[in-house]
Amino acid sequence: MDMKKRKLSDIGEFGFIEKIKDDCHFNLNGLVKGIGDDCAVIGPYDDSYLILTTDLLIEDIHFIMDQINPVDLGKKSMYVNLSDIAAMGGSPLHSLVSIAVPQSAPLEILQGIYQGMKETCRNYGFNILGGDTSASRDRLMINVALIGEVPQKEILYRNRAEKGDKIYVSGPLGDSAAGLKMLKGEMKPSGGNQGYFIKAHQLPQPEITFGRGIARSGLANAMIDISDGLVADLGHICQTSGLGARIYQESIPLSEELKKLSTEVNFDAYELALYGGEDYKLLFTVPAEKASLLEEQFKDGQNGHLYPLGEIITGNEIRMVLEEGREKVLTIKGYNHFL
Amino acid sequence: MDMKKRKLSDIGEFGFIEKIKDDCHFNLNGLVKGIGDDCAVIGPYDDSYLILTTDLLIEDIHFIMDQINPVDLGKKSMYVNLSDIAAMGGSPLHSLVSIAVPQSAPLEILQGIYQGMKETCRNYGFNILGGDTSASRDRLMINVALIGEVPQKEILYRNRAEKGDKIYVSGPLGDSAAGLKMLKGEMKPSGGNQGYFIKAHQLPQPEITFGRGIARSGLANAMIDISDGLVADLGHICQTSGLGARIYQESIPLSEELKKLSTEVNFDAYELALYGGEDYKLLFTVPAEKASLLEEQFKDGQNGHLYPLGEIITGNEIRMVLEEGREKVLTIKGYNHFL
Repeated sequence: MDMKKRKLSDIGEFGFIEKIKDDCHFNLNGLVKGIGDDCAVIGPYDDSYLILTTDLLIEDIHFIMDQINPVDLGKKSMYVNLSDIAAMGGSPLHSLVSIAVPQSAPLEILQGIYQGMKETCRNYGFNILGGDTSASRDRLMINVALIGEVPQKEILYRNRAEKGDKIYVSGPLGDSAAGLKMLKGEMKPSGGNQGYFIKAHQLPQPEITFGRGIARSGLANAMIDISDGLVADLGHICQTSGLGARIYQESIPLSEELKKLSTEVNFDAYELALYGGEDYKLLFTVPAEKASLLEEQFKDGQNGHLYPLGEIITGNEIRMVLEEGREKVLTIKGYNHFL
Repeated sequence: MDMKKRKLSDIGEFGFIEKIKDDCHFNLNGLVKGIGDDCAVIGPYDDSYLILTTDLLIEDIHFIMDQINPVDLGKKSMYVNLSDIAAMGGSPLHSLVSIAVPQSAPLEILQGIYQGMKETCRNYGFNILGGDTSASRDRLMINVALIGEVPQKEILYRNRAEKGDKIYVSGPLGDSAAGLKMLKGEMKPSGGNQGYFIKAHQLPQPEITFGRGIARSGLANAMIDISDGLVADLGHICQTSGLGARIYQESIPLSEELKKLSTEVNFDAYELALYGGEDYKLLFTVPAEKASLLEEQFKDGQNGHLYPLGEIITGNEIRMVLEEGREKVLTIKGYNHFL
């Protein structure tokens, strides 16, 4: 296809990242990891790495102004970044906040966004150190850049899974995707539990404490957060580690609310759990011989729960053992903002 | 005025920053400086500080797509951040790049932007370590977050000017503002030198080498970059240092090109130099007894030129001695994206 006529929607976000990720490094001093994981990694400084991430939220792409209140929008803009910090096993330290706001917007919207951000800073013990505030013509845009830290020996990457590792996830999947469908009007349940799903979508709690627990244990090999969907993000672990995975449908954790909803509205809850995205749970792999030790450490549930999903295998496929026993290869398709 | 009806344009960017800058710190570990200077400062790490800044460029607010080519736009998005690093006396290390691009935009625009960014990384010796790429509905938006470093003993803040300090600027002022007027169609010279001014506006060279030279000398008290305009940014130095300033109109450096243009088009070149903004030169103050030593260090011109402007005085006004000898008080008015 003629380059001049190609659009981003033709190659997608991941295709574009592949295109631009070369020739990005001209200072190797303190550079540990560039593009390719949940966070970039620099250091070490005093036996810790600093980890860096950034996320954009764009009006009418990531959120609809009428559907989310400004305080929750401020929280979500922090949460999606906190989840990247959690995925490396880190804790947040400092953020920079950029906001472009329509010239005509009432001040209380901006104040609400900052209120939500500051509440998040307070709850997770980190700072807003600066930023940029600008007018926009007609749509709101928030970018947060977040710096965290993680002890050098505890950092977890996505590309270190090994054959035989057990795969775990930190919580039920699919609720966020159901909430998004309700917001889009694609799913209209008659029951009164819509708020639960919309909250799961708009305020996915970042798993900082859980991630620190996994990292501190020193037992895991690889970790990632589920932003693109279970299959897509397990795909990232597999692809970067040069391996495949086998998961068991009956092991995929679903909330009671999602099970009930899927009966009421008649849809496949597993489809949402596998491909929905934006759950922001942590997905990680643990050598089989260390799995029982880790499960022992988490059995009181105080730092979260472990949900085993399956195991890392050779090859380059993600296979799922269905409830009836048959095995099928899952197609990796993630959420793509350009499609 | 009723809060619900107030808009950002009612209080401006600086008014808004005043409103939100409290309650931003919940982790004092390694926090040196938050909101209120060109960069935030954290550390020290290995006798150096890390310095953090971020800048947004929004289509139809900061640039018009038809008037700047994508490569230059990529460069400018880096330059404005590099200038903040220069203003603290630092060198750039790592950047995070967020871009939202209209779904319909041809891929070559994004590739051009990244090409300009990477050339800047190569020229100034720093990295792109990650970012976020998203669709937008209809306008392009670029946010860059930049991390630099500066030796702990060399860092320069804006709020450390002292009474009697001599004030210097690193180069001629007003060219960028003339270029902006041409782009806006507010100034239509018949001569052929428009490209010079438009380049001054679109590609203001960041003064990293110059800023490092001033910092390394250990002779300056305070430094800032001129983004809002000479009077506004000198105002930031004065206000945060609790002092005033006296500058001399005849000392304000103007390029030969601007002098010629002001005769041709008949406008006041000093008005642009004082209030125009986006020059991205460095403005700094030096104790009077150290000034000759600093001038000696810069006399070969290899690391740039020093242009003396006046001196720091008591009070809270910026006074200018006019060419005819009379002194007048300058009103502080800076560029404001909300007005």
